[in-house]
Amino acid sequence: MTKTIKNQTTMKDEDYKGVYYSEYLQLDKILNAQQTETGKAGKEAHDEMLFIIIHQSYELWFKQVLFEVGSVMEFFKKTRIDDSEPDLAIAVHRLSRVTTILTALVKQIDIIETLTPLDFLDYRDFLRPASGFQSLQFKQLEGLLGLRMEDRFGKAYYTSALKDSDKQIIEDMEKQPKFLDLINDWLERVPFFDEKLWDEYTRAHSGTVEEGANDFWQDYLCAYDNSLAEAEKDNLKYLVSVCFRDIDMEGNRLSAKASRNALFIMLYKDYPLLQAPFQVLQSLLDIDEAMSLWRFRHINMVHRMIGGRMGTGGSSGKDYLMQALNKHYIFKEIAALTSFMIPRSSLPKLPKKLVKSMSFG
Amino acid sequence: MTKTIKNQTTMKDEDYKGVYYSEYLQLDKILNAQQTETGKAGKEAHDEMLFIIIHQSYELWFKQVLFEVGSVMEFFKKTRIDDSEPDLAIAVHRLSRVTTILTALVKQIDIIETLTPLDFLDYRDFLRPASGFQSLQFKQLEGLLGLRMEDRFGKAYYTSALKDSDKQIIEDMEKQPKFLDLINDWLERVPFFDEKLWDEYTRAHSGTVEEGANDFWQDYLCAYDNSLAEAEKDNLKYLVSVCFRDIDMEGNRLSAKASRNALFIMLYKDYPLLQAPFQVLQSLLDIDEAMSLWRFRHINMVHRMIGGRMGTGGSSGKDYLMQALNKHYIFKEIAALTSFMIPRSSLPKLPKKLVKSMSFG
Amino acid sequence: MTKTIKNQTTMKDEDYKGVYYSEYLQLDKILNAQQTETGKAGKEAHDEMLFIIIHQSYELWFKQVLFEVGSVMEFFKKTRIDDSEPDLAIAVHRLSRVTTILTALVKQIDIIETLTPLDFLDYRDFLRPASGFQSLQFKQLEGLLGLRMEDRFGKAYYTSALKDSDKQIIEDMEKQPKFLDLINDWLERVPFFDEKLWDEYTRAHSGTVEEGANDFWQDYLCAYDNSLAEAEKDNLKYLVSVCFRDIDMEGNRLSAKASRNALFIMLYKDYPLLQAPFQVLQSLLDIDEAMSLWRFRHINMVHRMIGGRMGTGGSSGKDYLMQALNKHYIFKEIAALTSFMIPRSSLPKLPKKLVKSMSFG
Amino acid sequence: MTKTIKNQTTMKDEDYKGVYYSEYLQLDKILNAQQTETGKAGKEAHDEMLFIIIHQSYELWFKQVLFEVGSVMEFFKKTRIDDSEPDLAIAVHRLSRVTTILTALVKQIDIIETLTPLDFLDYRDFLRPASGFQSLQFKQLEGLLGLRMEDRFGKAYYTSALKDSDKQIIEDMEKQPKFLDLINDWLERVPFFDEKLWDEYTRAHSGTVEEGANDFWQDYLCAYDNSLAEAEKDNLKYLVSVCFRDIDMEGNRLSAKASRNALFIMLYKDYPLLQAPFQVLQSLLDIDEAMSLWRFRHINMVHRMIGGRMGTGGSSGKDYLMQALNKHYIFKEIAALTSFMIPRSSLPKLPKKLVKSMSFG
Repeated sequence: MTKTIKNQTTMKDEDYKGVYYSEYLQLDKILNAQQTETGKAGKEAHDEMLFIIIHQSYELWFKQVLFEVGSVMEFFKKTRIDDSEPDLAIAVHRLSRVTTILTALVKQIDIIETLTPLDFLDYRDFLRPASGFQSLQFKQLEGLLGLRMEDRFGKAYYTSALKDSDKQIIEDMEKQPKFLDLINDWLERVPFFDEKLWDEYTRAHSGTVEEGANDFWQDYLCAYDNSLAEAEKDNLKYLVSVCFRDIDMEGNRLSAKASRNALFIMLYKDYPLLQAPFQVLQSLLDIDEAMSLWRFRHINMVHRMIGGRMGTGGSSGKDYLMQALNKHYIFKEIAALTSFMIPRSSLPKLPKKLVKSMSFG
Repeated sequence: MTKTIKNQTTMKDEDYKGVYYSEYLQLDKILNAQQTETGKAGKEAHDEMLFIIIHQSYELWFKQVLFEVGSVMEFFKKTRIDDSEPDLAIAVHRLSRVTTILTALVKQIDIIETLTPLDFLDYRDFLRPASGFQSLQFKQLEGLLGLRMEDRFGKAYYTSALKDSDKQIIEDMEKQPKFLDLINDWLERVPFFDEKLWDEYTRAHSGTVEEGANDFWQDYLCAYDNSLAEAEKDNLKYLVSVCFRDIDMEGNRLSAKASRNALFIMLYKDYPLLQAPFQVLQSLLDIDEAMSLWRFRHINMVHRMIGGRMGTGGSSGKDYLMQALNKHYIFKEIAALTSFMIPRSSLPKLPKKLVKSMSFG
Repeated sequence: MTKTIKNQTTMKDEDYKGVYYSEYLQLDKILNAQQTETGKAGKEAHDEMLFIIIHQSYELWFKQVLFEVGSVMEFFKKTRIDDSEPDLAIAVHRLSRVTTILTALVKQIDIIETLTPLDFLDYRDFLRPASGFQSLQFKQLEGLLGLRMEDRFGKAYYTSALKDSDKQIIEDMEKQPKFLDLINDWLERVPFFDEKLWDEYTRAHSGTVEEGANDFWQDYLCAYDNSLAEAEKDNLKYLVSVCFRDIDMEGNRLSAKASRNALFIMLYKDYPLLQAPFQVLQSLLDIDEAMSLWRFRHINMVHRMIGGRMGTGGSSGKDYLMQALNKHYIFKEIAALTSFMIPRSSLPKLPKKLVKSMSFG
Repeated sequence: MTKTIKNQTTMKDEDYKGVYYSEYLQLDKILNAQQTETGKAGKEAHDEMLFIIIHQSYELWFKQVLFEVGSVMEFFKKTRIDDSEPDLAIAVHRLSRVTTILTALVKQIDIIETLTPLDFLDYRDFLRPASGFQSLQFKQLEGLLGLRMEDRFGKAYYTSALKDSDKQIIEDMEKQPKFLDLINDWLERVPFFDEKLWDEYTRAHSGTVEEGANDFWQDYLCAYDNSLAEAEKDNLKYLVSVCFRDIDMEGNRLSAKASRNALFIMLYKDYPLLQAPFQVLQSLLDIDEAMSLWRFRHINMVHRMIGGRMGTGGSSGKDYLMQALNKHYIFKEIAALTSFMIPRSSLPKLPKKLVKSMSFG
């Protein structure tokens, strides 16, 4: 009768049923993947462990971010996104999660900053030439979102630190569709300008600013022009070139049509149908902003850790990173559209049929 | 002459010299340790990946925190800490790093909160009975810092979810010295009260509040008594019982002597010698506060995820966690000493010899 | 000719045209409203300035929060909110702003925590009996959101520290409609259950769980029952009592009908029409959570500042605050609905007419 | 006998004794200082209130920051700071508080970002030409810390928006001692190099790198040279020019002597006497970093609000702000010293007498 008096709280390993936390999370792998170089060399530097853990934590999260962005891109690869399906809402939710993750990663820089320069020198030389610059996943993230090799600051340098096998991965990725391009295609398709919805549009202004633009946009261009102070008048030309002519200006990635539609979404976001599209655009800007913040804090951190010390190639780390930061805003063309907005009170009034199509049935 | 025309940027995998980022970080392990239960069952739930990654990230950081706390405990295991050695400064730095890490972990709860209840239900049942409650490292951290089995809310429940092999690890840890006990011993040793340093102490008050207390403390008790409003007078008794009598009160862990010395440090922290000890005490309170904040946000998060839904044992998750939160402040006896302070202007004046010993040579 | 050689950059005060920053912000008031009590007494304590500034900053933001919440309540006072109007989107935006503000205010507690207990004692006695507990705006915020006098922990104590004129303001506010009540009314009106939209609903389960519930809810109750583990079976009764019977249970504020509709919104949030209502509910929970976090950090801060020191009334500050925290979740009935959800895959399928009414025209 | 039955909780306004919260905080001023321009014009734009409140909140905190920095500068104006006095510890505490405040202010940018561009346009034109650029206190803060008119990006532009009376305030401030200069003077005075403490220093290297440098620094320069990789060899010259020759290089503000002493502090920070000085230097870098972070987030925010829209002067807001950000690191010469450090294991060994003087008595 031993069984009946068996201590209730005893649970032989083999009796355990179902999922077990440490196995589910494969902690045997996760928690046995830290070996310090200084330890191997018999000169253990206490802080190297932190250096390893924080980079591993970043890589874990990069995996998650790639997973989320990848899943959202699947929606945008569809030839049509049904506004009455939850696709856009889910996309917004996941993109907003990406920003939340990136923001937590920015916060983690507080942890790296507890590494003092003097302590860093204890293991710095042992790690050469390894560097976060070799993070494949970070390069993949930038690439997947839309940064092309040709847009990068310091192109040649970009893959120079990688082994050929990793370089190949990056090159293959270059050929894949990028999120920014999918967004461009989706924006072009957004069907606000079906002729029939605009039948009853009444012009408010009489001028013609841009040949070929329809009545609504003629009105908009007039209203925009009116909203500009004397010193800002050049902005009208800029709006026309961005939203009405498919010229290649500083390597623009959004077509005139896509830009125009994005602007429309930003202006009429109060209509129910445009709320999710607007939130998609916002979440892209949020991601850009979170990534720029990460880059910026990274620059400050590097600067405090090694100062203006010259790199092996003779270039200062800080300057390189700052140039990259300025150049690597991926969705900057969407952000730039803000310049072309006018106050709500001056917006052209939309025809009833269109309004109805943007409302609930 | 093939070699001379070799593309500069090509680096065959086998030619790479030195440490390589992905190998150094053992990313093959880290990034291949995510397998969803819903995926195994052919019912992939998108959000399960996040659930895995965030828990892995927490476990990585718990390893780091255990590493830092463990290293600091080594200093306090010494029979004497030389104030002119950097030990205390390093201890403060590492403990403060622990708080920085815990604070970043609190921030990560923002990420879990992007899991909506409805989405959570898509994989919840697949994970049973696994739970963060099975995290061995978190239990180790609490235990290492000072939480004993007997102090825990819901003792019996505490290891009930663990396999025997893991339970054994927890039981072994129970027998190890705990940080709180090392702190008690260190506080008892702090040598401010070497008789000779106090030769010239001049009493300011004439009363005797507590038999056996030396002149300084007699004065302090009088001054404290004077500082109390009528309704607070009971605090004097409380101060005496905490700092002068080694009675067992609600399982107190700091001896009267240790409490007294800690209070002294908090009162005279402006002297150079006491700055590092004061910072040690502060950093312990910071850790307690960061952990309590984690617990609290965890409670809110659980509540939003599953509401007041009853657990399998019939107890509500939220209530259990709230009770644990209230009971698991590890360094609460240090925090409580704040009640016994008086304004700087009423502090007994220290003798010159003592002051000199707390200043630079 | 003096005029022509006049320095271009000179701008006589009286020549300035338009709005001037410091006047616009009335900085003469804002920056001249700090007078320390210790200064008046000729015993300037450095840290009292911080104490004043941080409380003023809190009050400024409380004004803003009241302003936002008040503006949102105006929408909900309408007898009908047109889903095709931007009202709900604006409400969500402003409520989410409230959370952002509250979150920044939580962060500000980091600043108060730079006040050490010893430094606090330098001015504490000069401020008696003033206390944050006298903040009228904070009480107004709690009250406006929905906390009634009768729901408060320590009712009698609640206004005891106020002057009669301020007490009157609180009492008047008690009579005003509260946000929670407006939410209840709105939820009752949400018209998903117009009979005609449900004509074609096909029952999936055969049982009757609750007399009077319509076919859809009969099915839902069956599905919910099926989803419960043996030990959770009591939850079914709980769901019935909350969502189908208007009994007064622990002073519930949401009617059965409102609770039911809220649950429906949470379950079918993927339909476009329900997205904004779902976001409204979420933003209320976010506000509750942010306020609870503020309360919790406030408790920790008070504890570190004055320990367990007895207040003049003999009650410990920490315990009072913790009880208030537990009791003052304003939208807890909404949070509790999470317990009643089932996985997406088990949800009853909605009739086509209803689906169409929740989609775009 | 009316009195005896008087309700206990009644407190006639005139009976109130002591300090009353709302009066203490002068809330009548603080909460009555918000008047919208759109309201005056009868075109109330909801979001203008937030615009006012957030700027007022910033100004409140700038006052506090100026107060803290001013108080710390008083310590550094002393001809000698006694290491055994609490001055440096208090300075570190207050400077660290400044960073905490600035960090909370950075977080507040989350709040401004809830202003959408379209909503901003509703009141933008009403505010012209007022702008945060007219904040006197922010300019004072930069100036007080050490930014001179001549160091600013866009000097001419800098005060162009101010009224003459405010311009005068800025000009007067220019003549006041700046924190950076006080730090320079203090660093020059730090007396580690009293000849007598170095009597027994034994040279480890035989070379002479810089004529005039003493034995310790000769050794240091040799050790530094040895630590450099081939491509970094130029750094030696740079170290010599910064720490041994008072040449004017890009408007450097720290003398060679001060730089040398700061480097010494950073290298030997483990000695008790150097901990507080080291923390002072760190806290200056923390302030610089927090301010740069504020500037950077401000840039992103402005960009999202108005895009690349041209200002009235024809210059893009974003570019101007980015240039200012890069140029306005006030303590960059201290940060740059990191480049000149060597690993702990290569540091010259200090003579016993010196070590003793940096330890406790």
